[in-house]
Amino acid sequence: MISFECDYNNGACQQVLDNLIRHNNAKPTPYGFDEFSERAKHCIREACGLPDAQIFFLTGGTQTNATTIDSMLYQYEGVICVGSGHINVHEAGAVEFTEHKIITLPDYQGKMEAKVLDKYLDDYMHDGNKDHAVHPGLVYITFPTEFGTLYSAKELKDIYQVCQNYEIPLYIDGARLGYGLMADGNDITLPYLARHCDVFYIGGTKIGALCGEAVVFTNRKAHKHFFSIQKQHGAVIAKGALIGLQFEALFTDKLYFKLSEHAIKMAMRMKELFIRKGFEFYVDSPTNQQFVILDNEQAEKLSRKVEFSHFGQTDRHHTICRFVTSWATTEEEIDELEKILG
Amino acid sequence: MISFECDYNNGACQQVLDNLIRHNNAKPTPYGFDEFSERAKHCIREACGLPDAQIFFLTGGTQTNATTIDSMLYQYEGVICVGSGHINVHEAGAVEFTEHKIITLPDYQGKMEAKVLDKYLDDYMHDGNKDHAVHPGLVYITFPTEFGTLYSAKELKDIYQVCQNYEIPLYIDGARLGYGLMADGNDITLPYLARHCDVFYIGGTKIGALCGEAVVFTNRKAHKHFFSIQKQHGAVIAKGALIGLQFEALFTDKLYFKLSEHAIKMAMRMKELFIRKGFEFYVDSPTNQQFVILDNEQAEKLSRKVEFSHFGQTDRHHTICRFVTSWATTEEEIDELEKILG
Amino acid sequence: MISFECDYNNGACQQVLDNLIRHNNAKPTPYGFDEFSERAKHCIREACGLPDAQIFFLTGGTQTNATTIDSMLYQYEGVICVGSGHINVHEAGAVEFTEHKIITLPDYQGKMEAKVLDKYLDDYMHDGNKDHAVHPGLVYITFPTEFGTLYSAKELKDIYQVCQNYEIPLYIDGARLGYGLMADGNDITLPYLARHCDVFYIGGTKIGALCGEAVVFTNRKAHKHFFSIQKQHGAVIAKGALIGLQFEALFTDKLYFKLSEHAIKMAMRMKELFIRKGFEFYVDSPTNQQFVILDNEQAEKLSRKVEFSHFGQTDRHHTICRFVTSWATTEEEIDELEKILG
Amino acid sequence: MISFECDYNNGACQQVLDNLIRHNNAKPTPYGFDEFSERAKHCIREACGLPDAQIFFLTGGTQTNATTIDSMLYQYEGVICVGSGHINVHEAGAVEFTEHKIITLPDYQGKMEAKVLDKYLDDYMHDGNKDHAVHPGLVYITFPTEFGTLYSAKELKDIYQVCQNYEIPLYIDGARLGYGLMADGNDITLPYLARHCDVFYIGGTKIGALCGEAVVFTNRKAHKHFFSIQKQHGAVIAKGALIGLQFEALFTDKLYFKLSEHAIKMAMRMKELFIRKGFEFYVDSPTNQQFVILDNEQAEKLSRKVEFSHFGQTDRHHTICRFVTSWATTEEEIDELEKILG
Repeated sequence: MISFECDYNNGACQQVLDNLIRHNNAKPTPYGFDEFSERAKHCIREACGLPDAQIFFLTGGTQTNATTIDSMLYQYEGVICVGSGHINVHEAGAVEFTEHKIITLPDYQGKMEAKVLDKYLDDYMHDGNKDHAVHPGLVYITFPTEFGTLYSAKELKDIYQVCQNYEIPLYIDGARLGYGLMADGNDITLPYLARHCDVFYIGGTKIGALCGEAVVFTNRKAHKHFFSIQKQHGAVIAKGALIGLQFEALFTDKLYFKLSEHAIKMAMRMKELFIRKGFEFYVDSPTNQQFVILDNEQAEKLSRKVEFSHFGQTDRHHTICRFVTSWATTEEEIDELEKILG
Repeated sequence: MISFECDYNNGACQQVLDNLIRHNNAKPTPYGFDEFSERAKHCIREACGLPDAQIFFLTGGTQTNATTIDSMLYQYEGVICVGSGHINVHEAGAVEFTEHKIITLPDYQGKMEAKVLDKYLDDYMHDGNKDHAVHPGLVYITFPTEFGTLYSAKELKDIYQVCQNYEIPLYIDGARLGYGLMADGNDITLPYLARHCDVFYIGGTKIGALCGEAVVFTNRKAHKHFFSIQKQHGAVIAKGALIGLQFEALFTDKLYFKLSEHAIKMAMRMKELFIRKGFEFYVDSPTNQQFVILDNEQAEKLSRKVEFSHFGQTDRHHTICRFVTSWATTEEEIDELEKILG
Repeated sequence: MISFECDYNNGACQQVLDNLIRHNNAKPTPYGFDEFSERAKHCIREACGLPDAQIFFLTGGTQTNATTIDSMLYQYEGVICVGSGHINVHEAGAVEFTEHKIITLPDYQGKMEAKVLDKYLDDYMHDGNKDHAVHPGLVYITFPTEFGTLYSAKELKDIYQVCQNYEIPLYIDGARLGYGLMADGNDITLPYLARHCDVFYIGGTKIGALCGEAVVFTNRKAHKHFFSIQKQHGAVIAKGALIGLQFEALFTDKLYFKLSEHAIKMAMRMKELFIRKGFEFYVDSPTNQQFVILDNEQAEKLSRKVEFSHFGQTDRHHTICRFVTSWATTEEEIDELEKILG
Repeated sequence: MISFECDYNNGACQQVLDNLIRHNNAKPTPYGFDEFSERAKHCIREACGLPDAQIFFLTGGTQTNATTIDSMLYQYEGVICVGSGHINVHEAGAVEFTEHKIITLPDYQGKMEAKVLDKYLDDYMHDGNKDHAVHPGLVYITFPTEFGTLYSAKELKDIYQVCQNYEIPLYIDGARLGYGLMADGNDITLPYLARHCDVFYIGGTKIGALCGEAVVFTNRKAHKHFFSIQKQHGAVIAKGALIGLQFEALFTDKLYFKLSEHAIKMAMRMKELFIRKGFEFYVDSPTNQQFVILDNEQAEKLSRKVEFSHFGQTDRHHTICRFVTSWATTEEEIDELEKILG
């Protein structure tokens, strides 16, 4: 059975695996202080156009979000996020586990709007009881969003401007960063994104790696004891080169972008198939996640031949079905889907 | 200047103070294990019609909410609350500080609706990824709500039924419990409320006491080590009789209810004044908090003679002004307000 | 039965109670921003000789320790304390509840030794793996200690010097501060103590008040959002004047010191009685807590007529019995003890 | 330069790497619900002689300890550990980060003694103020210890007996489990260990894997929502097969034991070299960590040719140097050390 269930039910891409094999006996310095991690950081700094960026490698997305957010907040501060944000709904309370509140704003197609953020912060600043409330200490957005949508360059700039007006840093969750950057119509480059936030992470797990995410502090404002905070979170691995080696491969010869581009190409072929068959979409996504509305019967029937996931319901009779491609999706799998859709 | 700013800018009512004075030299057992606390608990059990209720005294509302909620949740569980709920907006993140998420639902006039709760829980139960989400472990409502509104007996029953269907306990924040129970049109009695939840607290600070809240577990399901949890929260005071003595007075000769009734009488006089003068209300509150919409100029002018608080804005030119009465509000103060309103 | 069980099984001293009664109808500003609290702070600043000290009122000792310590530490930092320190043994893990480790050092008669602290910090600084350990962020001592012993002026100065050498602040828990300051042989004054630490608290609960402790930041280094942290801890009471009024009374006409002096006088009479009868002491305490070694039979027999507490055992057959006086202890009670001891 | 600095400065053993390569394209179910993880669990259950054991895979040691301990404790409980225990000194406060206290006992050569544990628990149970203290909720020991020492079968049995007497579970940190099990003179087998504790973990990172630890609950008492707790800790990786595949290899054909045996053989050769040269040892370790006392000059000189770590000092002039072998240590490296020692 073909699967479009998610973008993490596969192994590593070949070049990543090869790099692990090649240097398996290299005896690297532990805890991420090895030469491969250093090289990987160098490559990422180059790709971001930020020669001074501070970079840390962690293992997975939830861990990266909780550790990074916790490192940036004072104890009485919370993080602002749209209600549909990943940290708010799918991370088992990992942020609250670090004692910080997630302050939620309404979203538009999964995105935070600069004006909504501005209104919230303005109200907060003028609230006579603000010391009885959680202080907003960080803004969190995802690129792409949970709905596969993207901020335009203008939208990101506006949000960052609001953040700067209130002196609150901006953090971008890039679990699927490559799939956003390589999407049709996207007008944000990696250097542009890096210049319009204070910290972001480059997702490896969903794009070619076995595990691993790279947190990039753009302004040299990483907590000076980030390592200890990482350790306290159980987020340091002894053999740090495991992640360094993978990112070195991903950021050599633009592999990360090529893998992402491929996934997008497959997603657009898939999207076209659904359009051609007259299906409606829950949201118009230019990225590797497509949200198709099927009536429950169709969904049930299709699920016998294709793996996908249920994202919700539009009404009692219709299901929002999520179909996801990845760097590992093949043309043959899309062909097969085409056959099945008939 | 007269003040309707809040219901906690005064001392204790005379009977409460007298009881403190009378037994000042009694050498009570510390940490709340004294005879006065025992007697107070007895009186409260009688008033609730629950001879077996487990009762604990704490100092203030935020402390009581955080300690009680934390005691009822497993680490991976969160508490469900409407977005406008006190724990979500005015307690400085005290619940998240205990590592628990507040899961927010939309409210209707400050109230949680049984059908909205049911829908949320039903969706949660059917969510294939529910183990990646925070588990709902408790439902929190306030009586009266932040907007001064009240649940009807039917509404409370319906919410509790949903809770029971999903085996999730219900907790009622009664910071202003008396002001709700004695409100015009309220059809909930203390025993009824006690039978339709698993735990609630009776607010003392806002109704006659200097400090102190009484947590009542209705079903003998208080955590067996509630005392240690209370201590861990810094919520045990050495001279526990300070609170016991106050509640003994409040629950002798129905004092708590009489104090509350008086505040409601004053609030209704005040409400009538505003109605008579043609003011609009943000919400129709039968309790001691009245939310009047004034244009900004009116609000500014009135604030020179009367203390009240700003609750928000309906538009750029209109402010929602909160006027609060308490057990300590006098007829003279309302007369004075009448004169000022002209 | 007479009781020397503890110094918190009584009400308030008369002047404190009178002040509460006198201003009961004063309608003070809530949350501690009232004039009485301001006046109390002024009196305390005078007594400390620190016109700029930042002062906050909290309700009880455990709450005060947890809130103050948490406010002074970064998330990856811990607090250094002797193993017998109150926060380490009798506060139900309230410090760890705020996610901070207590790093324990061995004590000498309940006291931390400057050289032991210096050795620990020196080792830490030279530890190649120090980023894998909890960073020491605060030093906590008690005055008097759990054993009723006192630091000399020289000892305190030496500890503070070590703290300053390593740029780690010093916090003094003064739950029984007055009983230390007024002890025979003590060579530390309140201003001296205030100049030799960064923050300390003046215990009210055990010395004349119903509840309340005053945290004094000596160097204007209180966290700028201490109020929000206090609120987050559930450590703000709505009617803050309750504590302000008590401290105003305690720091008017040196009441705090007179109450303490009386307790010490009673303790010394008691001590002499035990000495005269040939009892041994577990430790030589100049303060209001006396630790007498009784054989188990004696202890059992005495406990029928006098209340005291068990502090531990020196061997199977001997119990360390703690006898405590307070401001409320009367000459008659000591006379009665004398009769009982025979 | 040859390195005996630690047992985690290398890659994976060949069979582990081969298994990852072989199944790289297998499209496993995410989050650890894949067939490889299932197979690995099956193999581990067989090796433990526990057909019903509940097994979870995590990434590293600190994470495993914090997650497992947190899952087993109520909020008011702490974990008992010797002062030198890894969680107490080298995990950056990761346990306290979950709000639990580490209650420390003195050790004997890194080991907890049954009688010391028994005394502590007995005292606790008889402490009249025990509700003001942290409740002991778990006992934590390491096998081997931080000093490379081992519990005998008798010693482990005695400790477990004490735990059972007080109904407190026992958790064994097996970061270097294999190196303990295969040590000369060890009389504990894996099944014996599994029968004498409630939960333990089998360290993979230090014995053949790139990352990964296997937590084994022996009595079917894993928290029913362990997965959610794991997620909340940021301790779930999306591609769980990464760990499953490694443990499948390690527990096929006794690889885990063979790798461990090799490390011990190398360690014993090394130990003999040091003995032959007349060096003293800080402790007599039968496992892969050897603690040799060098005078500072010797240490400095040796460090130019051999990597090892500093463990502390016996006096100003002597350093405790830790030399560690692993599954990856070669005979050639020991030969080289022999040459260097001269």
